[in-house]
Amino acid sequence: RSLSSTNGTRPTLSSNSVLALTTGDPTVFQPFWRKMGDKSKVVIDGGELMSYFSDVGNVCWFLEPELGDAIRRLHRVVGNAVTEDRHIVVGTGSTQLFQAALYALTIPAAAGVELEPVSVVSSAPYYSSYPEVVDCLRSGLYKWGGDACSFDKDGPYIEVVNSPNNPDGTLRESVVKSGQGNVIYDLAYYWPQYTAITSAADHDIMLFTCSKCTGHAGSRIGWALVKDKDIAKKMTQYITITSIGVSKESQFRTAKIMGVICDGCQNVGSAESENFFEYARELMSKRWQKLREALQHSKCLSLFKYPRERCLFTGELNERLPAFAWLECKEGIKDCEEFLRGFDIVGRGGKAFGADPKFTRISLLCREEDFNGVIERLLAIKGIRNGN
Amino acid sequence: RSLSSTNGTRPTLSSNSVLALTTGDPTVFQPFWRKMGDKSKVVIDGGELMSYFSDVGNVCWFLEPELGDAIRRLHRVVGNAVTEDRHIVVGTGSTQLFQAALYALTIPAAAGVELEPVSVVSSAPYYSSYPEVVDCLRSGLYKWGGDACSFDKDGPYIEVVNSPNNPDGTLRESVVKSGQGNVIYDLAYYWPQYTAITSAADHDIMLFTCSKCTGHAGSRIGWALVKDKDIAKKMTQYITITSIGVSKESQFRTAKIMGVICDGCQNVGSAESENFFEYARELMSKRWQKLREALQHSKCLSLFKYPRERCLFTGELNERLPAFAWLECKEGIKDCEEFLRGFDIVGRGGKAFGADPKFTRISLLCREEDFNGVIERLLAIKGIRNGN
Repeated sequence: RSLSSTNGTRPTLSSNSVLALTTGDPTVFQPFWRKMGDKSKVVIDGGELMSYFSDVGNVCWFLEPELGDAIRRLHRVVGNAVTEDRHIVVGTGSTQLFQAALYALTIPAAAGVELEPVSVVSSAPYYSSYPEVVDCLRSGLYKWGGDACSFDKDGPYIEVVNSPNNPDGTLRESVVKSGQGNVIYDLAYYWPQYTAITSAADHDIMLFTCSKCTGHAGSRIGWALVKDKDIAKKMTQYITITSIGVSKESQFRTAKIMGVICDGCQNVGSAESENFFEYARELMSKRWQKLREALQHSKCLSLFKYPRERCLFTGELNERLPAFAWLECKEGIKDCEEFLRGFDIVGRGGKAFGADPKFTRISLLCREEDFNGVIERLLAIKGIRNGN
Repeated sequence: RSLSSTNGTRPTLSSNSVLALTTGDPTVFQPFWRKMGDKSKVVIDGGELMSYFSDVGNVCWFLEPELGDAIRRLHRVVGNAVTEDRHIVVGTGSTQLFQAALYALTIPAAAGVELEPVSVVSSAPYYSSYPEVVDCLRSGLYKWGGDACSFDKDGPYIEVVNSPNNPDGTLRESVVKSGQGNVIYDLAYYWPQYTAITSAADHDIMLFTCSKCTGHAGSRIGWALVKDKDIAKKMTQYITITSIGVSKESQFRTAKIMGVICDGCQNVGSAESENFFEYARELMSKRWQKLREALQHSKCLSLFKYPRERCLFTGELNERLPAFAWLECKEGIKDCEEFLRGFDIVGRGGKAFGADPKFTRISLLCREEDFNGVIERLLAIKGIRNGN
């Protein structure tokens, strides 16, 4: 069975027999964008978008004004974050913005000052990339400090709060109680297809990414909503130093894609079926239903249960539908990743997230055929164990 | 006089009266791309380029195969670099690739190993961003070591060789003589519009950028040609950690733009007038002629003279036509940057490049009206000084 179709899509990391679901490649939403056709198409002439500069009067001088406007409109339509009196900083994915925020929060005001690296912490299980990104260059400004729940040092720290949380889908608040810390809110998954929108998030530094919102991971567009002008300036400075701005083509296209989403939600020249979040929610809902059904009698694997919440966007009581399944092994199976690999399902084991190896994260944002393959294999596991 | 035209172009950093030529924003080539019209246009549908992945079998898994092919073709057509048996790594500008190369050359093979940071050096005057990029996060892997000519420490080092050199347009070779060093060749300006192509560069790590080659700075596309597979893997790893790849839209468009350039050079369905490098060379040549004329009787400012060289691409004896003018003050004027600012010309002073403040770098890649403004002001300086 080949996973690469012939109509212009790309192969996944899966081979014919092994389903690799380690990354959250959000190709699940592709059919929606195919259906949108010309509405979501962009055309760029050879002489356009050539300059380094987008908006020289703005704190973030490389932010295309159209993208800034689209981001504000999208948050207004969805109601998931406050954008009034915030600076928008665009980045090469929210990954670059996370680093920009670390830089902005730790760079000394005066040159020549030598301080101890600031500890960066997050509650386990935490997104496996945080420690990797933080310690990558062995920075003298900051270093990975591990699980926020066991952090008890004095002095400055930075806590990253990912809510809903990757990998386990829980809603999070900061846990370190101290006056000397800063918090970065990574709200990559705070969109209606994954969770109820219960209020407009209103924190000092909030990170979002196109990958998980619209499904356009290839564009590498993230954005930060930043309350303090000086922090926004330093974040912009970091991106200036490390990449002299962010792809204009991606910014231009993301503005278009966000506009299509907003038009669809507001029925501006769109049918009701063109509400992206309803489409995406429906899709996630079906996948979670299939997954729960496949595991309901399993003696080997179990899933978290999440409460229902009232969503301000849909107006309904909504189930949580995380982008990842956080599978837990039962019955004394110690290494969930290894166990699943025995059935040709490749997830990412709990250890990478600072958690017990009895957990494994599996992406639910893959293409339909890959998802169905996982379900088949999970059902096969159940059969084997039941048969024993 | 307003510098922002109304037909869709962006304002420069210049205000009405001050000409800011501190950055090398390559808007000079925009008229060529406007003229190309539909040939250089790209169309991207909403459902395309959504995945993180481009080519999972390749060392650089996020490189669009079309871009890899276009890069190889462009180097073959121009003859400026060897691409056979090289790995191509794409980056968010060559800036990110420079950092990726530093990481690849300094990350210890085993975890937990603590080494002294490796010195990164370059011959003064050096590109002003090198020290800024190297020391940005106070990495424990590497640190800025200053002018390569005065570097005399034992142990490992990395030398960056920028040739033709930014800011002064000279051709460069590595200067540190030691067995323990690695060299990164930054060949951003090794294109026929700036210099004679005297041979196909054949170094272990070579960096190029779209900004200075085609003029598309906004795309933030750079590429590295890397001989050693392990180094290419580590560079890819750095880009994976810090930005999970590079904008697919920019890669897609750059492939198209490079294709148009190659077709134009080879007269594939193109008129002779559509040879981009001839167009760009002609333009740079006119600017240098005007600049030299404006300063030929100046008692305040002088310019380098460069030798003519035989160019393998044009087949002619070609003048060097650097992207920047490296102005030197005469007659006891100590601070060239300050001196020029008095005439509303804002360049970047020698000190930023590790050189004497009697020098200032001025970009020659600006829009026509800005360039003409500089010439007028330079002529005015001459008048004032002659009149004294």
